[in-house]
Amino acid sequence: MPHETAVPVSPAPTASAGPSAGPSASGPVADAYDLVVVGGGVAGLSVAWRAARRGLRVAAADPAPASGASHAAAGMLAPVSEVTYTEEPLLRLGLASLARWPAFAAELAADSGLGADALDYRTDGTLEVAFGSDDLAALDELAAFMGVLGLPVERLTGRECRRLEPMLAPAVRGGLLAREDAWVDPRRVTAALLAALERRGVPVVRARATALERSGGTVTGVRLAPAAGAGTGGGTAPGRGGSGEGAGGDRVLRGDRVVLATGAWSGTALEGLPAEALPPVRPVKGQIMRLRSAQPVLSRCVRGAVHGARVYLVPRGDGELVLGATQEELGFDTRVTAGGLWELLRDARELVPGVTELEVADVTAGLRPGTPDNLPLVGPSALPGLLMATGHHRGGVLLAPLTADLLLEESGDPEGLAALCSPLRFQEHRSQEQS
Amino acid sequence: MPHETAVPVSPAPTASAGPSAGPSASGPVADAYDLVVVGGGVAGLSVAWRAARRGLRVAAADPAPASGASHAAAGMLAPVSEVTYTEEPLLRLGLASLARWPAFAAELAADSGLGADALDYRTDGTLEVAFGSDDLAALDELAAFMGVLGLPVERLTGRECRRLEPMLAPAVRGGLLAREDAWVDPRRVTAALLAALERRGVPVVRARATALERSGGTVTGVRLAPAAGAGTGGGTAPGRGGSGEGAGGDRVLRGDRVVLATGAWSGTALEGLPAEALPPVRPVKGQIMRLRSAQPVLSRCVRGAVHGARVYLVPRGDGELVLGATQEELGFDTRVTAGGLWELLRDARELVPGVTELEVADVTAGLRPGTPDNLPLVGPSALPGLLMATGHHRGGVLLAPLTADLLLEESGDPEGLAALCSPLRFQEHRSQEQS
Repeated sequence: MPHETAVPVSPAPTASAGPSAGPSASGPVADAYDLVVVGGGVAGLSVAWRAARRGLRVAAADPAPASGASHAAAGMLAPVSEVTYTEEPLLRLGLASLARWPAFAAELAADSGLGADALDYRTDGTLEVAFGSDDLAALDELAAFMGVLGLPVERLTGRECRRLEPMLAPAVRGGLLAREDAWVDPRRVTAALLAALERRGVPVVRARATALERSGGTVTGVRLAPAAGAGTGGGTAPGRGGSGEGAGGDRVLRGDRVVLATGAWSGTALEGLPAEALPPVRPVKGQIMRLRSAQPVLSRCVRGAVHGARVYLVPRGDGELVLGATQEELGFDTRVTAGGLWELLRDARELVPGVTELEVADVTAGLRPGTPDNLPLVGPSALPGLLMATGHHRGGVLLAPLTADLLLEESGDPEGLAALCSPLRFQEHRSQEQS
Repeated sequence: MPHETAVPVSPAPTASAGPSAGPSASGPVADAYDLVVVGGGVAGLSVAWRAARRGLRVAAADPAPASGASHAAAGMLAPVSEVTYTEEPLLRLGLASLARWPAFAAELAADSGLGADALDYRTDGTLEVAFGSDDLAALDELAAFMGVLGLPVERLTGRECRRLEPMLAPAVRGGLLAREDAWVDPRRVTAALLAALERRGVPVVRARATALERSGGTVTGVRLAPAAGAGTGGGTAPGRGGSGEGAGGDRVLRGDRVVLATGAWSGTALEGLPAEALPPVRPVKGQIMRLRSAQPVLSRCVRGAVHGARVYLVPRGDGELVLGATQEELGFDTRVTAGGLWELLRDARELVPGVTELEVADVTAGLRPGTPDNLPLVGPSALPGLLMATGHHRGGVLLAPLTADLLLEESGDPEGLAALCSPLRFQEHRSQEQS
């Protein structure tokens, strides 16, 4: 899985004046930007695109954009179905971002020039189902909790579930239909974001950022590693990288503000990040499997519990069915394992036996950026000039519109969401630890 | 899986005088050969190599050598462990070929120039284990049957099995150790065969044979399809195909004898094959999974039954562990399916729980050439000049040395094995059907 390990795990080496990384075909690298985004996943690209729409001068850097967790993600936009006890703050963020998705999708479809179907954005709801009697008891408890929260879900019998989704197993005992949940194809979203950035002339430099540039106490840009070589850069035009060089001959992207959006690698990728600004993210591995089907097997996302084990099945417009996802805490490990696939297949076939007939198109693993409180890190960091757009854990795709809004302060913050995401919320705790 | 479908399923089109397929770098295509082998799997390449060693002028043709069932095979040389009720004739063939393997491996290692370890040929025996009490009862019956046949096996307790193979599950109840069974890496075997052929100047033409050439009632060669294009031919040298052209401008390999060795496609690939010579082969699909491990998980082949479901685990010298294999009769279907992988993982982890920790390196499916009596088709066909080396079903790798011997009549046939394999054995039956 080269794309999952494209962002290196080990501390970044000091950049030297090697062959310069050319800018992407979308635009030349200028001397300085209003905003420099480090990381080309769905979070970073969304921030860059929304900033460019506002008229900011933006550049982004990633050795392999759209290849990490965003590439492995299933793309559920399902804050209602995914609600978890004690995590009402995450629900608030999810609902606020879900409300932004229709406009985000429409504007991205238009801006990318790829048309209305470009994202495979679908709003047919999510069906949460229970397999065993233990799962049914948990489902009823969840339904009660959702009722307290005032969430719009309908409790269905097993038969009603199968009426909606005839491929569900007879053993499925009941379900919860969340009509307002949606889903999207994350690979199409990042492709559309890259297309929109290209149309707006935003350079997406195919190079790894290795260190922060600072002047006094303020971040002024990032230093880039030499280009990884031909073939990684898409539309890279060699020999155009003369502009943007730093004082020492290293390549530098200068910006008034730098956004750190390198997901699971946010805590390790950049030199010059002081301890007080280091984001507390850790890699949470997920393995998924893509199956190919001539006819669609499901008409909406199905999530379920099989004797407590979680699995979801996300249908794509082209008949593909995505099975996910394991959650493993093994450090920077992106191996697809026999056990990971076995768990996915074991549970998915209990809920939808017909999956066994489908062809295996792809198996992959990615690393989600987890945080101590499962909330993202979005907003100014302790280091002046450095912003965060990371720590989205399982919710990077869902939270992309809100992330961009909060970071760019596009629509104010009447709901008080910015404080929930503030990277500074771990400051006090950390200071106490150090004293 | 392009390699599994490289040999086309549909009737071969008539060859036209297109861009000619050059010979491989191993030698130019001459006007005529003693032997022309159609099919570059382990059977065809073995015949070609042994014939060349005897001094015959040989050529072979395959659009993608070493890419079909030989590529997917696990490589067990285990006639003892694989013995099946009513199939004593197959056991006789297997034992006779197993006895030829040490010399075959040594000569191939030398002839290929790849050295003694080139084939990963290992003679540490096979352990057949039982999981459930039903499996243990079947194992005891099998042990009794093996005793009647006089086969050299040892009945072990579950504890004795785990002493030999500590990674076996505590639930394994007993086993049979067949010390004389062996195994080999089929991908290395075909690579060594190709290397040996190149060193002997035998051309392996990267082109598909489409039709038999006949003169009177006798086969005189095969017509070849135009080359599939650059990149498929390995060392193909364009522009050297002028020699060997047929009367109509089509490319032809002329040979005193033609050997049909196209595995599951032997009944469909060649025009001009009369009904009475058509081999009764059918595709039997197998799916396998290759796992990667830093340390070897097993020290010998482990085969087992888990509540009647068969699975085997074959260790490679580089730490790889091969899990196989399903048997499905679905026609020319080489899709890797969710259900196929699930069955492999379900049963393999019952026997060796540690497999769940291993990385998935590769999943693939191949088509074995099955026959009505599960015995191969080796020897002269009803059509003068046409020989068969096909129908090896699960035993192509094991039976390769014997196949070459029988076909080339290298060592006589004191054991009367040729009659067991004769393609003519279905003649009488077929004539009765037609009358």
